[in-house]
Amino acid sequence: MSVIANTPKPPYFAVIFTSTRTEDDNGYGKMADRMVELVEQQPGFLGLESAREDVGITVSYWADLDSIKNWKANSEHLDAQKAGRKSWYDSFKVRISKVERDYGI
Amino acid sequence: MSVIANTPKPPYFAVIFTSTRTEDDNGYGKMADRMVELVEQQPGFLGLESAREDVGITVSYWADLDSIKNWKANSEHLDAQKAGRKSWYDSFKVRISKVERDYGI
Repeated sequence: MSVIANTPKPPYFAVIFTSTRTEDDNGYGKMADRMVELVEQQPGFLGLESAREDVGITVSYWADLDSIKNWKANSEHLDAQKAGRKSWYDSFKVRISKVERDYGI
Repeated sequence: MSVIANTPKPPYFAVIFTSTRTEDDNGYGKMADRMVELVEQQPGFLGLESAREDVGITVSYWADLDSIKNWKANSEHLDAQKAGRKSWYDSFKVRISKVERDYGI
């Protein structure tokens, strides 16, 4: 279950991962669950929000760019990225951004 | 239908709007459709991605901060924001971020 991430006062970083899926479900759900479990253990990780309809959007929040770099280079995550490119995603886009301001209720 | 936005080379800006809904559906769908129609006409608007499950995530992309400011101050949009705070959203968060890098397939 995904809720609104309880992020600290800006600045911090957001990785916006947008994707469209193939029909190939071979191991996808299991991988996705494992990646959530794993990302939550990463240094500098601040939170995650995720939803999928026609397009899937997962936004992860990070304290700094080095933490994002380390997560991208995590070996289990590298395997998932490889399988994602090969089988699970028709298309995807990763956007690295710096959150400068936020507000809400 | 939402697909991956065809954004230009960074830098550009992303507004990450995350929300959880109330049960109150009074006019929500109609408003949401109208806001999409309207946002696409705004100067500086670059694209939109949207999905909702437990949490709703809408990311809009913009050429610059002034365009975001103008959209926030749009009168129809102000009415929608007011109704959103009052009726449609249990909670929401708006994050203004600068996209510094992107890649994908």
